[in-house]
Order: sequence, then C-alpha cells, then structure tokens
Amino acid sequence: MKELNEAIRKWGKTIGKDVVKVDMFLNHRIDTALMFRMGEELADHFASARPDLVLTVEASGIALALACARALGDIPVVFAKKGSTVVQNEEMVTSRVYSFTHKTENTIRVDRRYLPEGSRVLIVDDFLADGQAVHGMMELCDQSGCPVCGIGIGIEKGFQPGGETLRSQGRDLYSLAIVDHIDEKGNVCLREN
Amino acid sequence: MKELNEAIRKWGKTIGKDVVKVDMFLNHRIDTALMFRMGEELADHFASARPDLVLTVEASGIALALACARALGDIPVVFAKKGSTVVQNEEMVTSRVYSFTHKTENTIRVDRRYLPEGSRVLIVDDFLADGQAVHGMMELCDQSGCPVCGIGIGIEKGFQPGGETLRSQGRDLYSLAIVDHIDEKGNVCLREN
Repeated sequence: MKELNEAIRKWGKTIGKDVVKVDMFLNHRIDTALMFRMGEELADHFASARPDLVLTVEASGIALALACARALGDIPVVFAKKGSTVVQNEEMVTSRVYSFTHKTENTIRVDRRYLPEGSRVLIVDDFLADGQAVHGMMELCDQSGCPVCGIGIGIEKGFQPGGETLRSQGRDLYSLAIVDHIDEKGNVCLREN
Repeated sequence: MKELNEAIRKWGKTIGKDVVKVDMFLNHRIDTALMFRMGEELADHFASARPDLVLTVEASGIALALACARALGDIPVVFAKKGSTVVQNEEMVTSRVYSFTHKTENTIRVDRRYLPEGSRVLIVDDFLADGQAVHGMMELCDQSGCPVCGIGIGIEKGFQPGGETLRSQGRDLYSLAIVDHIDEKGNVCLREN
C-alpha cells in the first residue's frame, strides 16, 4: 500500500537487523487518516470473504481492527486480552503465545460469548513477524468453532517466518506492507506489493 | 447519550455494588457503530476547544480515542503505554497510576516527541472511576508543557470520586454516561444527562 510504504520510509526507525519501529504513526502515536486508509484497504480485500467480526489482540492491534471493521460496514471487533496468568475458566477460550521480541509467554483469552460458533472471523493485527499472535488467535477460533476467513496485517516482516508459514497453509493473508530486510546501513527495504 | 445509556441497560452486568461490566460492547467486544457514535458525540462537545491530539492509555481507551479523533478531522491519537517497571529515560515522560480495581501500580509512559510542547490535548478514556488514569495522563501533559483542553469519558462511575474531583478543579469533563449507583437488585441506575 503506497501511503503506508511512504510512511515506513519516512518515519520508520530500525534497530539492528530485526527491529522496525513505527511508533510515529502506527503503535504509539497513530496517524488517524492513514489508519483509516489502511482499514479500508483491508476491507476492500476481505469484503468478499464476508467476515462476521474482526478479531485482534490488545493493545496495538485495536486501532487497525476498528478501522477495518468500520469499513466493512460496522461489524463488531473482539480484542483478545493478554495476561501472564489466567485462571482456566469455562467462559473463556485461551491460547498461549510466545513473543520472540519480548522473550515472554503470554496467555491470550476471549470470552466465548464473543466468538459465537460458526462466525466467520477476520484476524487483524498491526504486525506479523513470527506469527505467534496470529496462531494464538487461530487457536481461539478453532476452540470456538469459528472459521478464519482471512488474516489482515499492517506490516509484515518478510524476513521472519510468520507470513510464509501462513501462506504455505493456504491462508488468505494480506499484508499492507512487507519489509523485505533491513540493509547494512539500517535502511528499511520494502517488497513492492 | 441515549444509545449508550440503552446499551448499558441492555448489556451491562454488575458485580457487587462497584463493578459495571460492559464487555459486550465497549472493552472486549466492540459495537463498532456505537463506538463511532460515541466518538462523534465527544467530538461535538470538544471541537470548540480545538484539540491538536487525543491522548489515551492502552488498551481499552484506544477505540474511543480513535473514533473521537476521526470525528475531529483526523487529528492524531497518542496512547500511553503501561508497564510495571520502566527504565527512566530522557525520551519518555512517565507517571505512576494506582489501579483501585486491580490493586496494582502501573507506570504509564509516552515518548516526548509525541506530546510536542504547547499541543492542546484532549484526554479520552473508556471509564472514569477514581480518576487515577486521567490524573496520570494530566501529569504526562504537564511534564510535556501541553495544556489539557478537555477530558472525554465513555462511562463515568458517579459513585466514585474521579468525576467530582475533576469538575471541582474546573476541568471540562464530559462523560457520555454516568452510572449513579448500582441498586440492591444489581441494576445499573444511570444519571440522566
């Protein structure tokens, strides 16, 4: 997506070979107009999959999920909550998510009532790297008997395996921007998509 | 706000005399159309205060902040991040927030660059109870040299002191719904506003 690629080039900062910081417009400060354009772009791609709801995980996925749900005609958003310890509870579906970035394991959880059996779920997140968060959300959908009809991502780190794994499983994964690599000067090199 | 009052009456659950759960439409599952109506209502109230940005705190404030920022003509949203331990860092402004609900103290932080000195800040949050989160955000604004031009809240718990304290300080606080009390049958009693 052209505007997003431009924002990454203009505002993105890199740390080493792995970390792309987009605090300036995506996940600390939000460029509101850009966020809604991103949501519309995801909605255009996934409208034909007829999602009943958008599922994301707190906190930084919420804005893109809401913008996308708006553009899909005000379908509901459900955001999974994170917690390191969760009492197992029949009202909740839970999944464990390992974060390679933070080297921590989190439990994510959703109240069963908000993933009614048979609902077509569009998973949305701001970032895709190793794909642990997306896999955790897919597990929540499985446990709830909800088919995942697509996965919409703001920025995919193409040099980490999350995207390739999902595509090889035949998932409809659509990433608005894909960072191919960070070069030796610390520049973000984007895949043209 | 009529639609919000109706949603609280229809979907709100109470626990004891203090807790109002609005998971169904506000802070776990989001009713997207209602959330944007709430954002528009806050924007109508605060447009004349000419905010430059909306400040909230992760996670459940993000959706209302974004909806409000959209209605204010796509001004930026900044969301403070939470962390129990934060390395003091010149790039960050930080504040300590005690949560009476969770009996924990959190540090909230914002990168200084995203609260440029002199910016007029509209603080938005989904809930107001004791007012600790709002006071923490006001402190971040003070440290950044940013005037707070208003405080917009989804649901105020009128039986807790946060709202009264802010009003007595002469703050322009606007709450879309105010829960007056929870009665002995566990019903939510709303103040007509």
